Amino acid sequence: MDYKFNSSVASLQPSAIREILKMTSKPGIISFSAGNPSAEAFPSKEIADIASDILRNDPVSALQYSITEGYSPLIEYLKEYMKGKNALHSDDAVIVTSGAQQVMALASKALCDSGDTVICENPSFIGSLNSFRAHGGKLKGVDMQPDGMDMDALEALLRSDKRVKFIYTIPNFQNPTGITMSYEKRIRLYELACQYDVIILEDNPYGDIRFDGEEIPTIKSLDKEGRVIYAGSFSKVISPGMRVGFGAANKDLMAKMVVCKQIEDVHTNILSQMIIHRYVTEYDFNAHLERIRKIYRHKAELMMSLADRYLCPEIKYNKVQGGLFIWATLPDNVDMTNFCLRLVKNSVAVVPGNAFSVEENAPSQSFRMNYSTETDENIAKGMQIIGETFKSCMDI
Amino acid sequence: MDYKFNSSVASLQPSAIREILKMTSKPGIISFSAGNPSAEAFPSKEIADIASDILRNDPVSALQYSITEGYSPLIEYLKEYMKGKNALHSDDAVIVTSGAQQVMALASKALCDSGDTVICENPSFIGSLNSFRAHGGKLKGVDMQPDGMDMDALEALLRSDKRVKFIYTIPNFQNPTGITMSYEKRIRLYELACQYDVIILEDNPYGDIRFDGEEIPTIKSLDKEGRVIYAGSFSKVISPGMRVGFGAANKDLMAKMVVCKQIEDVHTNILSQMIIHRYVTEYDFNAHLERIRKIYRHKAELMMSLADRYLCPEIKYNKVQGGLFIWATLPDNVDMTNFCLRLVKNSVAVVPGNAFSVEENAPSQSFRMNYSTETDENIAKGMQIIGETFKSCMDI
Repeated sequence: MDYKFNSSVASLQPSAIREILKMTSKPGIISFSAGNPSAEAFPSKEIADIASDILRNDPVSALQYSITEGYSPLIEYLKEYMKGKNALHSDDAVIVTSGAQQVMALASKALCDSGDTVICENPSFIGSLNSFRAHGGKLKGVDMQPDGMDMDALEALLRSDKRVKFIYTIPNFQNPTGITMSYEKRIRLYELACQYDVIILEDNPYGDIRFDGEEIPTIKSLDKEGRVIYAGSFSKVISPGMRVGFGAANKDLMAKMVVCKQIEDVHTNILSQMIIHRYVTEYDFNAHLERIRKIYRHKAELMMSLADRYLCPEIKYNKVQGGLFIWATLPDNVDMTNFCLRLVKNSVAVVPGNAFSVEENAPSQSFRMNYSTETDENIAKGMQIIGETFKSCMDI
Repeated sequence: MDYKFNSSVASLQPSAIREILKMTSKPGIISFSAGNPSAEAFPSKEIADIASDILRNDPVSALQYSITEGYSPLIEYLKEYMKGKNALHSDDAVIVTSGAQQVMALASKALCDSGDTVICENPSFIGSLNSFRAHGGKLKGVDMQPDGMDMDALEALLRSDKRVKFIYTIPNFQNPTGITMSYEKRIRLYELACQYDVIILEDNPYGDIRFDGEEIPTIKSLDKEGRVIYAGSFSKVISPGMRVGFGAANKDLMAKMVVCKQIEDVHTNILSQMIIHRYVTEYDFNAHLERIRKIYRHKAELMMSLADRYLCPEIKYNKVQGGLFIWATLPDNVDMTNFCLRLVKNSVAVVPGNAFSVEENAPSQSFRMNYSTETDENIAKGMQIIGETFKSCMDI
């Protein structure tokens, strides 16, 4: 039969990144395209011990249905975590989600009517952009500057568009650009949201893997009006395969997100919630964070030093202080798509920058490289290949 | 701030069942309200052994990101499982979901535009009804008969309504009525779907816990046109807390559902997928199914014999051959809501029938009882309390 799809979903394509991921799972490819945390950063032994203990001594709690909001002890931990950032208010509630991606889905499902505007940093994370699109959101992009969104462009958008539902931002080590929003801009962003009566969706999966510089307060910590939805994740700091993230927002807004989750997947895998709760409360989670920051600092510095050696000055890139990605930009006379295809032929995968464009199919001269997945040896090899491939593109 | 919610979601209330579940988690309450499988039916030891082995010997596979479609070996198993029911066609694809509930969410997200009609059995499972509502579906109910939906009423609806997107059915041991659709009606349903060019969403979480009578072929097995989306689940036969379900449908339709899942939760918890795959392929899953059918037969027969003793003939109920629920109906002169509230005061929880009405707030004289959660002792005690409470209602 001929299928007639939902009008917002009909034009949606699979995430280019996840399609590339499938391709790059072939042996021999050096993958700078994933957003995978380093396999050596998983606390595998501790997770194995905890899982074993739970399944032998308290199996029914881990195997039976649970409540939609999340495993209560984990929620209590998350409330304390948010309080530690001065980012939980007395009328806020916390939800445990099936990965932070689900916070974007629940927020847009709860808030967006078809045709509502969602303002996004441009470029931004494709998974979130597609979630907003699928829920009927009409995306408008605000270009990135070295210290975050262009606030004047944001204000102009807010002034001219009366259907803005929320502003989406990844303030720390943004995906894909690696940019961190300055404190001044966070304050301005919150003020603009108040002035134009819109919501902010603050997505912070990388905040805890800052390996350089000073932590900047979250936007949620500025929130006095229940205007900020905060999304956090254990994917980058413990394990992405477990699919445990969380959201924090005003309880009235959260109540609607809980209803939306109930009809989506009932609740998040309960064994994983229990494992994470025990890991963060019974083990030295801070020491673990220090250990993975050290891994990421080492890998980021390695990739940046190799970029300096093989890519610069023709290819420009942003220095990073955390997160997983380096954003590199080709000179105007090199065709980015052709360059990325050649790279794959030479067994190195990166993500073409237009995969992150708010306006679909907008041209881009940039590409995203991940430094957390590959071994040091492959990072060295891959960066050399990128340099050689770039030279071969220039020779034509 | 004042929140303005999505128009389909704004009026949505939390599932009455899950709210009751929260209430009945208090100690001392005999809960006939859950849809929980029996705790003694979980293969806890085997799951503990498998989890331990995976996390000690192959932790990275279980902790790293995976692909949206699902864990490949589990997909291969599910294809064979569906072929065993003659219900997988050469151009079908399978997806692993975060519980079968997610199949309903993905199907409605992929297919429904706001205002499209979804035809449902009346009464039906609240979680599915709310999922269709949240995705803009306008629900129309077809009353249940002892052998399934009233097919003449269905045809009249299909004839008069040109915006029907799909027909939702739970053909085996329907939730909440326990009714199984006859083979003749399954054939008629499929023919009507072809004639009026609509899709069928076949939700079959209870099919494998038939403990009496003969298995009836699935509607998917009749499908020659890629018109049936099949939803299955491991919640009732292995563990609901693990949140692993699956869908089978034509690959073009499935491709869109995969995109919808990608933006919802990226992929299903991978450790749980691996555990289930190993359990169903390396252990004697059929022997396990026989064991749990025996548990459910025993508990169902116990509850039915006690219903005969304490409830009949004034309260009528459907005899069941599988599933988890008994549907009971009060005489017209008893107020159902009042009866259910009195029951809770007397420490027994059931679900009021109007929680399952397709038309919200439609009156109901029925209530749903679950026999799988409580001990034999509590089933006996609870049924006696129901009988006494009913008598006290009659005395007024």
